[in-house]
Amino acid sequence: MLVVQKYGGSSVANPERIRSVAGRVADAHAAGDRVVVVVSAMGDTTDQLIDLVHEITDKPPEREMDVLLSTGEQVSIALLAMALKELGKPVVSLTGAQAGILTDSSHTKAKILEISSSRVLEELGRGNIVVVAGFQGIDEADDITTLGRGGSDTTAVALAAAFKADLCEIYTDVDGVYTTDPRLVPEARKLDVISYNEMLELASLGAAVLHPRSVELGMKYGIPIHVRSSFNNHPGTIVKEINDTMEKSLAVTGIAYDLNVAKIGLYDVYDRPGIAYRLFHALSEEKINVDMIIQSATRDEINDISFTCSQVDLQKALQVIERLLPEIGANGFAGDDNVAKVSIVGAGMVSNPGVASMMFSALSEEGINLEMISTSELKVSCIIKASEAERAVTALHRKFNLAKGA
Amino acid sequence: MLVVQKYGGSSVANPERIRSVAGRVADAHAAGDRVVVVVSAMGDTTDQLIDLVHEITDKPPEREMDVLLSTGEQVSIALLAMALKELGKPVVSLTGAQAGILTDSSHTKAKILEISSSRVLEELGRGNIVVVAGFQGIDEADDITTLGRGGSDTTAVALAAAFKADLCEIYTDVDGVYTTDPRLVPEARKLDVISYNEMLELASLGAAVLHPRSVELGMKYGIPIHVRSSFNNHPGTIVKEINDTMEKSLAVTGIAYDLNVAKIGLYDVYDRPGIAYRLFHALSEEKINVDMIIQSATRDEINDISFTCSQVDLQKALQVIERLLPEIGANGFAGDDNVAKVSIVGAGMVSNPGVASMMFSALSEEGINLEMISTSELKVSCIIKASEAERAVTALHRKFNLAKGA
Repeated sequence: MLVVQKYGGSSVANPERIRSVAGRVADAHAAGDRVVVVVSAMGDTTDQLIDLVHEITDKPPEREMDVLLSTGEQVSIALLAMALKELGKPVVSLTGAQAGILTDSSHTKAKILEISSSRVLEELGRGNIVVVAGFQGIDEADDITTLGRGGSDTTAVALAAAFKADLCEIYTDVDGVYTTDPRLVPEARKLDVISYNEMLELASLGAAVLHPRSVELGMKYGIPIHVRSSFNNHPGTIVKEINDTMEKSLAVTGIAYDLNVAKIGLYDVYDRPGIAYRLFHALSEEKINVDMIIQSATRDEINDISFTCSQVDLQKALQVIERLLPEIGANGFAGDDNVAKVSIVGAGMVSNPGVASMMFSALSEEGINLEMISTSELKVSCIIKASEAERAVTALHRKFNLAKGA
Repeated sequence: MLVVQKYGGSSVANPERIRSVAGRVADAHAAGDRVVVVVSAMGDTTDQLIDLVHEITDKPPEREMDVLLSTGEQVSIALLAMALKELGKPVVSLTGAQAGILTDSSHTKAKILEISSSRVLEELGRGNIVVVAGFQGIDEADDITTLGRGGSDTTAVALAAAFKADLCEIYTDVDGVYTTDPRLVPEARKLDVISYNEMLELASLGAAVLHPRSVELGMKYGIPIHVRSSFNNHPGTIVKEINDTMEKSLAVTGIAYDLNVAKIGLYDVYDRPGIAYRLFHALSEEKINVDMIIQSATRDEINDISFTCSQVDLQKALQVIERLLPEIGANGFAGDDNVAKVSIVGAGMVSNPGVASMMFSALSEEGINLEMISTSELKVSCIIKASEAERAVTALHRKFNLAKGA
């Protein structure tokens, strides 16, 4: 059996934890598996490197950021390989470049194009455990790239897909995927299994346990992803294709929330063709990811447009709008980063039309005002005041009977 | 003019110094030079990484040590490139692999075979300042290697040789090459110029300012090496071919000393052909560099053999000898790391036969006992007690009139 295991930054945060990860990897190898291990940078390494950058420049060139940040995973692979060798295991470490992780040239947020080298398979053929640096790759010009958020998960699933691995295990600091954040709602229940689609919605909506990019990749290539804890041996949550959604008894699988949200409203925008295009094209030119968009006709030929983006992009987005004002003719605009997004997610939702209204009633019973609403086949999301997020999640978790033993 | 500049770890020890190095590099570029910059890891980075290793294993695999340690220079090149960009300069950073530093596969002490890529020249052609990671390379198997001691100096001179640079500047934390260590002897005088051969002896004998490998390489390819301080603009010492040694008035150019020496003596060794071969072959198999060797016939068919090695190799050397005892039939052996090597160096020595005896008389006047002596055309070295090294250097510096203004 070929297994890809990925360990995040907290799992390799110090030499002691690296030795513990080595023990786990060695067990899998001893059980007869061929093992590829993907690791992130140790704990705070990336932040420490970024602190150095801030002492040098406010606008570091992205190419050089990638040269810098990729060292973090390189340290991890070397140390983990040493720990495995210390346990008597045959092992070799490979950087992203050596493993042939070929990406496009979008520095700091590159996309994997293909696995362009047979080095990993050769090393597996020699009986070696192969430790690969997550988060990083190399482009056609032989320049180092990094994959941005969720990069190491993506590396792991991409390697699993390329080598047709039987399983991809994502080790993290939580026990699996929960019905909602257990730090917020103590009765939250761990899910044994979840579909790619549901996981994708949960991941996109702020459940940080697995990055949506890696879920998409797993879905595309049919790689089951086992999300589990690196600190114990409990079975975690398996993310895979589930075909029996019609028989699902539960309409709602989990509650997600995201505090890293900002809301922007534009008032009295011209109601003319091309206005929305101009606005959102300009935002995407600045690499600002827009999430929910709501356009509402309030009076004749005049619209309000609201949308959300991540908090880090708020100021940049406001500058874009300021610049566009003459073109789009808004009477005013405002940003608000004091909001949260709360969402219910479930593959059974499409066949249970009453679910959205159950959500709205639960929130209204708590006296929580809904500022924006957006729905899809798999989820309903609401923007509310940030200070009310915790209360909202708890109420929704109870409303949909997601608690342990429920 | 094409200039290669190399900055050592203390010159890039923190963001402030990196900015200062960037200013210096930018000045050279503004003056119209094409500039290749080689940098070492920041200050204590390497030691910090080694501390992590010690928490994981006592015998780290050398391949993985290279993966680990090469991250140090990679951090430096990224930060220096950022600092140069901040000054508005066109710049690109390259790892050893990207710069095509092809080495053999002797991990942790690899030798450069060739510069196998045209990337550096291409980037210079685009007008870029090229910042290259020192100390590291890549072997035929695409594995990361490091060059061992003096690696970054060697990278700089190798690049200067490959691209026929007009000058190779080695920036360090001292003002140049001195007649002896100015921390030890305050009257020590900075040399304006020194021949490759003399520098080679001084470097080999413990004057740490420039590593002998880089001096050899400079000599082989005729690259003048300017050793100077990164903290001021004083001219340093130029190491180059000097043909007028016959007219040199000074027999002795400098005094070197080395405290990282251990002495090993074997008593009553069989006086048979092949004994010395067996001993020193076995030591070289263990990668122990032997320096001075003295064999003295004390009685018929019985020899004493003494040699020196570096202190770190002492225990390993003693183990080799223990193992060989039946074969070489020594009656006993002993190691001593409480010794120092003191040397006088000068190209004029060969034509001044009285120089060695002047050295011996100076040391004898100080009551210093000579435990071993070795000579070459360019130097005379003596092994003495470590505690007497400082007194010996001071006395020799005075004896040969090397002081400022002398």
